[in-house]
Amino acid sequence: MSGRNEHDLLGDFEVPDDVYYGVHTARALENFPISGMPIASWPDLVAALACVKQAAALANRDLGLLPESKADAIVKACDDIRTGWGHDQFVVDVIQGGAGTSTNMNANEVIANRALELLGHDLGDYRYLHPLEEVNLGQSTNDVYPTAARVALQWSIRRLLSAVQMVREAFAAKGVEFAAVTKIGRTQLQDAVPMTLGQEFDAFASLIEKDRRRLLESRASLAEVNLGGTAIGTGLNAHPDYATLACGHLAKITGLDVQSDANPVAATQDTSCFVQISTALKRFVVNLSKMCNDLRLLSSGPRAGLGEIALPAVQAGSSIMPGKVNPVIPEVVNQVAFEVIGQDTTITMAAEAGQLQLNAFEPIIVHSLFTGMARLTAACNVLAKRSIAGITAEADSLRASVEHSISLITAVNQQIGYTEATAIAQEALATNRGVVEIIAERGLLSPDELTELLDPNRITGVAVGTARAAGAEGSRAR
Amino acid sequence: MSGRNEHDLLGDFEVPDDVYYGVHTARALENFPISGMPIASWPDLVAALACVKQAAALANRDLGLLPESKADAIVKACDDIRTGWGHDQFVVDVIQGGAGTSTNMNANEVIANRALELLGHDLGDYRYLHPLEEVNLGQSTNDVYPTAARVALQWSIRRLLSAVQMVREAFAAKGVEFAAVTKIGRTQLQDAVPMTLGQEFDAFASLIEKDRRRLLESRASLAEVNLGGTAIGTGLNAHPDYATLACGHLAKITGLDVQSDANPVAATQDTSCFVQISTALKRFVVNLSKMCNDLRLLSSGPRAGLGEIALPAVQAGSSIMPGKVNPVIPEVVNQVAFEVIGQDTTITMAAEAGQLQLNAFEPIIVHSLFTGMARLTAACNVLAKRSIAGITAEADSLRASVEHSISLITAVNQQIGYTEATAIAQEALATNRGVVEIIAERGLLSPDELTELLDPNRITGVAVGTARAAGAEGSRAR
Amino acid sequence: MSGRNEHDLLGDFEVPDDVYYGVHTARALENFPISGMPIASWPDLVAALACVKQAAALANRDLGLLPESKADAIVKACDDIRTGWGHDQFVVDVIQGGAGTSTNMNANEVIANRALELLGHDLGDYRYLHPLEEVNLGQSTNDVYPTAARVALQWSIRRLLSAVQMVREAFAAKGVEFAAVTKIGRTQLQDAVPMTLGQEFDAFASLIEKDRRRLLESRASLAEVNLGGTAIGTGLNAHPDYATLACGHLAKITGLDVQSDANPVAATQDTSCFVQISTALKRFVVNLSKMCNDLRLLSSGPRAGLGEIALPAVQAGSSIMPGKVNPVIPEVVNQVAFEVIGQDTTITMAAEAGQLQLNAFEPIIVHSLFTGMARLTAACNVLAKRSIAGITAEADSLRASVEHSISLITAVNQQIGYTEATAIAQEALATNRGVVEIIAERGLLSPDELTELLDPNRITGVAVGTARAAGAEGSRAR
Amino acid sequence: MSGRNEHDLLGDFEVPDDVYYGVHTARALENFPISGMPIASWPDLVAALACVKQAAALANRDLGLLPESKADAIVKACDDIRTGWGHDQFVVDVIQGGAGTSTNMNANEVIANRALELLGHDLGDYRYLHPLEEVNLGQSTNDVYPTAARVALQWSIRRLLSAVQMVREAFAAKGVEFAAVTKIGRTQLQDAVPMTLGQEFDAFASLIEKDRRRLLESRASLAEVNLGGTAIGTGLNAHPDYATLACGHLAKITGLDVQSDANPVAATQDTSCFVQISTALKRFVVNLSKMCNDLRLLSSGPRAGLGEIALPAVQAGSSIMPGKVNPVIPEVVNQVAFEVIGQDTTITMAAEAGQLQLNAFEPIIVHSLFTGMARLTAACNVLAKRSIAGITAEADSLRASVEHSISLITAVNQQIGYTEATAIAQEALATNRGVVEIIAERGLLSPDELTELLDPNRITGVAVGTARAAGAEGSRAR
Repeated sequence: MSGRNEHDLLGDFEVPDDVYYGVHTARALENFPISGMPIASWPDLVAALACVKQAAALANRDLGLLPESKADAIVKACDDIRTGWGHDQFVVDVIQGGAGTSTNMNANEVIANRALELLGHDLGDYRYLHPLEEVNLGQSTNDVYPTAARVALQWSIRRLLSAVQMVREAFAAKGVEFAAVTKIGRTQLQDAVPMTLGQEFDAFASLIEKDRRRLLESRASLAEVNLGGTAIGTGLNAHPDYATLACGHLAKITGLDVQSDANPVAATQDTSCFVQISTALKRFVVNLSKMCNDLRLLSSGPRAGLGEIALPAVQAGSSIMPGKVNPVIPEVVNQVAFEVIGQDTTITMAAEAGQLQLNAFEPIIVHSLFTGMARLTAACNVLAKRSIAGITAEADSLRASVEHSISLITAVNQQIGYTEATAIAQEALATNRGVVEIIAERGLLSPDELTELLDPNRITGVAVGTARAAGAEGSRAR
Repeated sequence: MSGRNEHDLLGDFEVPDDVYYGVHTARALENFPISGMPIASWPDLVAALACVKQAAALANRDLGLLPESKADAIVKACDDIRTGWGHDQFVVDVIQGGAGTSTNMNANEVIANRALELLGHDLGDYRYLHPLEEVNLGQSTNDVYPTAARVALQWSIRRLLSAVQMVREAFAAKGVEFAAVTKIGRTQLQDAVPMTLGQEFDAFASLIEKDRRRLLESRASLAEVNLGGTAIGTGLNAHPDYATLACGHLAKITGLDVQSDANPVAATQDTSCFVQISTALKRFVVNLSKMCNDLRLLSSGPRAGLGEIALPAVQAGSSIMPGKVNPVIPEVVNQVAFEVIGQDTTITMAAEAGQLQLNAFEPIIVHSLFTGMARLTAACNVLAKRSIAGITAEADSLRASVEHSISLITAVNQQIGYTEATAIAQEALATNRGVVEIIAERGLLSPDELTELLDPNRITGVAVGTARAAGAEGSRAR
Repeated sequence: MSGRNEHDLLGDFEVPDDVYYGVHTARALENFPISGMPIASWPDLVAALACVKQAAALANRDLGLLPESKADAIVKACDDIRTGWGHDQFVVDVIQGGAGTSTNMNANEVIANRALELLGHDLGDYRYLHPLEEVNLGQSTNDVYPTAARVALQWSIRRLLSAVQMVREAFAAKGVEFAAVTKIGRTQLQDAVPMTLGQEFDAFASLIEKDRRRLLESRASLAEVNLGGTAIGTGLNAHPDYATLACGHLAKITGLDVQSDANPVAATQDTSCFVQISTALKRFVVNLSKMCNDLRLLSSGPRAGLGEIALPAVQAGSSIMPGKVNPVIPEVVNQVAFEVIGQDTTITMAAEAGQLQLNAFEPIIVHSLFTGMARLTAACNVLAKRSIAGITAEADSLRASVEHSISLITAVNQQIGYTEATAIAQEALATNRGVVEIIAERGLLSPDELTELLDPNRITGVAVGTARAAGAEGSRAR
Repeated sequence: MSGRNEHDLLGDFEVPDDVYYGVHTARALENFPISGMPIASWPDLVAALACVKQAAALANRDLGLLPESKADAIVKACDDIRTGWGHDQFVVDVIQGGAGTSTNMNANEVIANRALELLGHDLGDYRYLHPLEEVNLGQSTNDVYPTAARVALQWSIRRLLSAVQMVREAFAAKGVEFAAVTKIGRTQLQDAVPMTLGQEFDAFASLIEKDRRRLLESRASLAEVNLGGTAIGTGLNAHPDYATLACGHLAKITGLDVQSDANPVAATQDTSCFVQISTALKRFVVNLSKMCNDLRLLSSGPRAGLGEIALPAVQAGSSIMPGKVNPVIPEVVNQVAFEVIGQDTTITMAAEAGQLQLNAFEPIIVHSLFTGMARLTAACNVLAKRSIAGITAEADSLRASVEHSISLITAVNQQIGYTEATAIAQEALATNRGVVEIIAERGLLSPDELTELLDPNRITGVAVGTARAAGAEGSRAR
């Protein structure tokens, strides 16, 4: 393959004729053969880089620092990339040293060459448009890269939030569907007092709603950017009005909330917003994993398990045990949760390792967040559609378990006293009898009293009609 | 030692005559000889338990479920505990199985016996006041324990916030003090462009302020409690008006924001607010540790280090190297940060391990949070007072480093172009000369232009007068 | 309180008259009010420091660097400390900056003053014996502290290993006891093929045995010490023969394997052996926690759970639900496991944060290991004695579950084919019938064939006689 | 696209005509659209699956359970896959529920169809060879999958070990090269006593050698497999001699150490060997990351840093600062280290989450290990070749720093006493003078004594000739 010659501080370097990237990208390809994943794996990031470069070009044009024609060519090149052109030219590895410099260089070079092409020049003929002196004008990797990452993460988190919402709604629907199905609640895996299956699912919906709000809050922390801070936040080489102008253009281009951070020196070294998102993800997956554990537990069986619910069968469960069906969807969600929790460790270490005016390890932070969010979005979609939506209740066995329950005794605790009640519970367990029978036998309560005290709606704290109507938010009607 | 006989479902048990706890506590002492730390190690928790029991007694009295005289005795006993009486009777281990049951039992028993004493009865004569049937009336460990933990954590976090504020103010004061001290900024540990030492400290203050706000937000999540939900959130055995009354009393007693959670079934199994606090702590210590790393780096030397600042000497640094002084205060803060990050892993695992209607592992979650917060509060106090407050700048050497800096070339980037500038930087490095000298020699810029472009205030983005006045929030004046 | 004046590089300092520590310790008390736990909390560490100081004094005496009388006094003082004297004088906080310097200083001062006392001099009259020039002769914190930590950890791990062995034996005994109890195995919480309850416990014993061996291996890594390397491993200020002599004395005094590391410069900065121990602990607790999860799951019920085994009741389980008994012992073990896993994160971060010739964060590493090992030792003891030893099998219900199991079909898989077997399993599930019945009905196998194929011993892979004899190691007899 | 009809317990399913996988794989594609990475991303795993299936077929042929012709076809199909054929048919997602069932199903189906093709039959015509009844004969996912994972990991770790060895050798070579370059050692970032730069690199080599041995040990733990245990380790449906035969074939086919685990019930639920490898990786990357931190620190500058060494320039460091060169290679290694540490958290959680007879979460464990090892192998190669090998020493400035060092005073500690030495160090610092000058001025030592005491070889504990010859293992010559 023939090539064109480019030059950097290390000397000459021949890059293939037909590529839009240049010497800086090519060096990075040699230096970072780490994951085999190009940054194009995260289309949000590539598009966000184009948005930032476009905003910068417009700001520089407004300030008279970049001729209209060059600005226009850059803007057009960025538009092309935002709509999908040339992502295959974003080739540097997602895991790279240099605090994102190679990513920024890759963007500068592709945009410059695309713009050169649009202007009718040869690729690499940087006399007409220079990747660093013009595409990167008034910019540094240290403000461009984290700004682009914030924009891209806002998009990614928006998709995740939709998927989270689906899970919430699927649980809430089951909360309504099972509002009248009585079951025995469990604390510490031991039989506790009765509740409805609807309350169980409704609680899940309610917890996910809280997580969703925390994710929303953490997304808000992405709005503040250090664009205009250049190398270390002092804004050297950027026009005093540049930051405001560029952020304004960026907000318009992306339709997102984008603001200039009040302290760009602080913002340039700061990775707290990434940590914040990671911990919001962690909070959510901790709950989600717990719920998947519960789904797997409640559907255990079919004959030697709790068998309270059935998950829809989605594939054969075993290559050796015929007819076996496994809870594979919750299982895969658990695994994504474990991965997201691991990524939070990675992000914690990388964030703590920042030094002085910059954190050199933003690439692994950003890569971990994109990975986690993409997988979690996929996992939520699958969980909602292929598992929760199809859950059915084993209503008969659930009701029977309530009737045989020893913990029912709790409902008459205040009438007969904790000490007496303990003795009855112990007798029931030892003799394999029912507590109601023993209470009646001992003449402690009249049949009417027992009927009233053991009324399922009283015990579960639910007025059935109310519960059916309650929907996702708050099932405890009084 | 003589003893009195008590009884539970396992049979009779002799407890020492003079202790205020009873059989349930005594069994727990046998079962959990784990850490050797009694729950009295966390006075906030003991006091919060007393507040919750007091609120419950008042609510039950209001509802006519508890005679005035018994309620009064319980209230008085709780008052005693809140003001320090009897903490030595809270003896169960901080690390315990049973989701906090033993802690609740310990509180029930001590309060009952103290109240019995106040009523003129013998310890253990539960005919006159029963730990479970009356002190615990309408309650379960599963609502009392997490409610008390939330109250106690609100108090603990308040103390931490004061300490965080001290660190912020100490950094901010240095930001003002060093506003006119120019230095070379560093990215990726390599010389970057100039800034002021004031900007460096000001950025720290600004980042800590953001962390402080996140801590405040996470504290707000503690306000919602499941008191009144009893065993699994359905409120079985609690009067329908109990939750509202008890929360009202609790708010009044503690002076804190306390509200009934809208979905107590969800709230009873939920540990998200603890995870939230843990991650807010983590976010803060990640930043704090990074800052301590920077302090240690900037003060490295005295002769073979960066030597930009001096930390106050607080002790001899070495048993073998005379005169050596080490950055021991930042070092101890780093270690507390590492511990808090480890505790976040513990809390994550414990939270994820909850099953069905309850999380049995709240004791280790709560213990980890109390430990982390206490140590972090101590560490912040020490850091602010014994280290940051006494930091001095090595102003001469800082200024010299700016003058010899090759990266100064960045300031004339736009005048001479990135490519030419690169060549000059390389020549400067190779020949051990200054870039200004080479630029002048090559006739690229006039002396006047150079003077203007290299004006420290321009380069650092700071108008000196403004910076002096700026204080903690936002140092970038334009 | 009156005091005596001592002096260090910061000037004069008055320490209380009656304390054996001196100015360096007193400064550290002011600098590190972090955890409130003095290093005396870890008696192993205090004793190990005395051993190291004793070994050093003997080596220096052998080399003629320390007069016999002074060496004798130091040796006697160390003997006193090793047998329990003066631990209350080891007052510096377990969490401290300075890489252990304050701990070493504390030891130097207490030993010097005790020796002065034995020699008939006043405390603090260092003209007759100097804490740094004589007690610390040829030493540095940087070789003394990690050496003492290694010795102390060898002792701590030895205690842990005994406790681990108890757990293993308790499980193995249950493996034998339940060798003939058939049950249904479960994969992914779904009914799988039959096994014996003995195999279940036997597997636990076998896994713990492997963990125990890994712990033993990791203990071996503690034998290599950098004693004699002084400040950075180069041995400056130590006599060329000192390292060998001192290690020899230390081995003799402690009765442990102690060797000079071949590369003391490497050893001085290295914390790998601590990481190694932490990860060996983690491996063990991951398994232990999983086993406790299983115990809790298998004992779930009593009526709405798996109910396969019963754990001994050790305390009342609920303040509201009479008669409830919870698996509190496994629950506390889970929590210790979560804490140990969190400590591994702390240790990882602290180990990674070491810089150049030393890791300043050894105190938190060492403290985390001592804490984890002490709690884990306690937890293992409680688990073995108060829980595993008393486990009983619900043999009838276990056998019934095997008989009703659909997965029994697997045993005739090869006779009737996976596809046909799947159809039968599905019919059994849909019609709530037994698979054996359907197979017979379809005439696929003769009664004799069925009896042979479903023979419990064949299915579980166990010849009953063999299994009873097998004990802990390897239950699969063929 | 036309398709062929296949059938499973959920009913009929049309798979594309030209694919070698079948209905089970196709269902899994619908269920697990999680990462977008097919299992073919790990060629080691695909090849290992083929090895296991081949070994199983040979064992079943030996036992007369599989006709020669079918066995031959399976063997040939496996050979094809091992040599690269058909990896594009291994399409299920690396992150999947079901404990690896879909991976095993994918292998069964591709092998069956390839064998059918070789036998002249149509794809999908399972009458002639059945994926489950014949290719999977005597097997279960639960023994095949973990066995294949162990084989594949043995291969992966072998490649990693070569890369680790390269890093070790690169460091060792620098240890020799810089054996005579004197510098000032640092503890806690403060100037300590002198050493050689060779000792610094030699220590790195020595530490990596220890890590390499731990990795080797952990690899050994992969040799024991549960092949033959089938569903839960009891060996149901496998011939009594099958395990031994199959392991024997597997050892022969792979050339690896492969043994039957003595307790297959334990082995089937056990993920300890994966935890073991993960922690061995973690131990290594903790050290590696620390070394990269040191390289970045030692090469900081060029003018306002430590500037002791120079890393080879591999790309331009900044899009805004001309001439800036950054330590991008160590930076990328740090990031891989952080990722591996995060993966250890993931693996820990997944391992702990196993329940009863199986761990359903092996896919994420295995995926994390493959990812970590691949990236770490790449990172080590790049580090050794593109960074360490080209490191140069700034010898003049290093030597100067020793001469100006205050800590030199340590070398005369024993001659003049710690207290006097402290005073001199303080005077030197305050007056900006040299300690040698002050000692001479005070007449404390004669010039000859000073010369002897400050001899570099004495101070650094190195006899130069010896050091030059010493090479990698142990530089401390006495």
